[in-house]
Amino acid sequence: MTDFGPGSPYVGQMKLVLEALAPGAPVLDLAHDLPPQNLAAAALVLLSAREFLPLPCVLCAVVDPGVGSARKILLAEFTRGVLALAPDNGLLAPWFRLQPPLRVRAVTNRALFNRRVSSVFHGRDIFAPVAARLAAGLRPERVGPAVPLRGLCASPWPEVSAAQGGLKACVVYEDRFGNLVTNLYASRLRRASAATVRLGRRKIPLVDHYAQAKSSQPLALIGSFGFLEIAVRDGSAARVLEVGIGADVLVETKRS
Amino acid sequence: MTDFGPGSPYVGQMKLVLEALAPGAPVLDLAHDLPPQNLAAAALVLLSAREFLPLPCVLCAVVDPGVGSARKILLAEFTRGVLALAPDNGLLAPWFRLQPPLRVRAVTNRALFNRRVSSVFHGRDIFAPVAARLAAGLRPERVGPAVPLRGLCASPWPEVSAAQGGLKACVVYEDRFGNLVTNLYASRLRRASAATVRLGRRKIPLVDHYAQAKSSQPLALIGSFGFLEIAVRDGSAARVLEVGIGADVLVETKRS
Amino acid sequence: MTDFGPGSPYVGQMKLVLEALAPGAPVLDLAHDLPPQNLAAAALVLLSAREFLPLPCVLCAVVDPGVGSARKILLAEFTRGVLALAPDNGLLAPWFRLQPPLRVRAVTNRALFNRRVSSVFHGRDIFAPVAARLAAGLRPERVGPAVPLRGLCASPWPEVSAAQGGLKACVVYEDRFGNLVTNLYASRLRRASAATVRLGRRKIPLVDHYAQAKSSQPLALIGSFGFLEIAVRDGSAARVLEVGIGADVLVETKRS
Repeated sequence: MTDFGPGSPYVGQMKLVLEALAPGAPVLDLAHDLPPQNLAAAALVLLSAREFLPLPCVLCAVVDPGVGSARKILLAEFTRGVLALAPDNGLLAPWFRLQPPLRVRAVTNRALFNRRVSSVFHGRDIFAPVAARLAAGLRPERVGPAVPLRGLCASPWPEVSAAQGGLKACVVYEDRFGNLVTNLYASRLRRASAATVRLGRRKIPLVDHYAQAKSSQPLALIGSFGFLEIAVRDGSAARVLEVGIGADVLVETKRS
Repeated sequence: MTDFGPGSPYVGQMKLVLEALAPGAPVLDLAHDLPPQNLAAAALVLLSAREFLPLPCVLCAVVDPGVGSARKILLAEFTRGVLALAPDNGLLAPWFRLQPPLRVRAVTNRALFNRRVSSVFHGRDIFAPVAARLAAGLRPERVGPAVPLRGLCASPWPEVSAAQGGLKACVVYEDRFGNLVTNLYASRLRRASAATVRLGRRKIPLVDHYAQAKSSQPLALIGSFGFLEIAVRDGSAARVLEVGIGADVLVETKRS
Repeated sequence: MTDFGPGSPYVGQMKLVLEALAPGAPVLDLAHDLPPQNLAAAALVLLSAREFLPLPCVLCAVVDPGVGSARKILLAEFTRGVLALAPDNGLLAPWFRLQPPLRVRAVTNRALFNRRVSSVFHGRDIFAPVAARLAAGLRPERVGPAVPLRGLCASPWPEVSAAQGGLKACVVYEDRFGNLVTNLYASRLRRASAATVRLGRRKIPLVDHYAQAKSSQPLALIGSFGFLEIAVRDGSAARVLEVGIGADVLVETKRS
């Protein structure tokens, strides 16, 4: 997963390195059309992949505004053979909150990197070679020392919190169709017996299917990512509601 | 093939499911840049892939404006080990007209789907797992009962018809370069001894090669998809001719 | 590598042919988002892939404004099992200058092409089948006769030349972030003990890391492609400097 753009030569160079160091290992493109340097969007897409992963697998997530700075690169070890490489910039933090990792390491073993490491393209020179070697069987302890979770960067989005009459969430991703995805996970939404959603001064009905709304009408539902999502039937919620990443969403519960 | 956009996380999630259920099976991206929800364009791209398919193969076509509604999902069985999964919305109809399938089934066996099936993303929750299981050897009769061809959705485009002085076709796809692809198949064009093409009030010469037209001049030829196509040399036919999907094209034959 | 656009059905059809003729051979997308028909940009991306290639491999480069004309198609043989297919339009010329090929052949053996060869899509009908057969073990001498290097098309960009006070280079590629990549290779830049870069009337500092410039400030550095690159921190150099492909860049050396 990167924010390099689909069909980008930067993605292409990473794939050359992956194939060179882990010949024949399947390489899947999780997403490359992410909004550049947007950590919230990237964290959501990564987290949502969680329940669909082929096992075992190595996730390689390069949305990295701090490339070339002193930020750490992390290797997180989860159960079921899931490994995730990502910069220490909060990209993995929402996942850690939902499912604590077995261990997190700082990637420091330069013997695993490309021979020359540029200051501008760690995706190709650090992430790809380390991911490939892990896919080819390298043991995680070889990449570097374990680091404590509490020293790592915080989540790119605030936690869902209790608010008057319900829950306060926020928009963390806008897809290419203008659907607005929030940080409120389906299971928590269900527990809350939510009834309606407020976005700005708009009151938006919570439905099960697109078909329950009329054309051009806003609706809220559990979307493709498994999170509360605001959409407009046959249209763009982002455009109709004039709202984007970061906007507050108030979910009103039936009890209130 | 989807209309989710290149590099989209929706395509990415489908690929996770495919790899999880059919490990190591090659997954080819036929197209993801299709105009959203445009069935004519998608049907053309699907049909044009026909003669280049690696055999055997499973086509998985998700352009599905009716997702979550009661529309059927079809599995078409063709000769030479070609299977095609698509919504019953006309996507396969032009193919059926050119090459009748051995059999068409309704995909109804929920045991083959993802454990949870969202109402908004059947590509990931139904199409991908069924495609993967078929690629891994599942017998087609396991997906659901055969259904009669005549009950299925009609083609997204009208048939080419006889018209005064020739044949009436229409534009069904516009590629990213502005080339306008029609529904008139090369073999039928050749049989018709076509001479010129009329689009609106423009008379456009029928040529064999781009090089036979001057720069910025419109021309008609058999294009990359194997259909009559209107192009502008070193330019965009869609922009120069101010025409798009749905426009009528009159092909004048020599005999008239 | 093509300029067909990411997610394009033209790339998709090439992949069908590759898989049909070289089943299971890994196919890597080097780049598809190249500016249409821009030979300089394509040559730069191709050349930059050089040091990261999985070996052995077949490069298949289709940026081909002359498709259907009498231009040759070339197969270049390099050391370490690297083969490269490209039109004879200068795409490989900068590579030849840096690393002379063992041999260059004209691809003429029609028995290796698709049964029908369209005049508009040699990527699918000539490049893909020949690339697939080479990947599957076809010996290079089977594709056609050797041709002399000196008869081939020249580079799409001028050589870097000595200029008053330094070296004169030019912009050959603009990436999607607006970074401007020049034709000046890192090793030559280092040898020149360069100090500053002039682009139009702007004087731009040469740095090692993005972090050495302030936000919105232009900077010059060795970029991801291994060439001198002009960037704007947290911004687009193309937009800020109002410069694009073809612009002259003067590199001032310390000795001057």
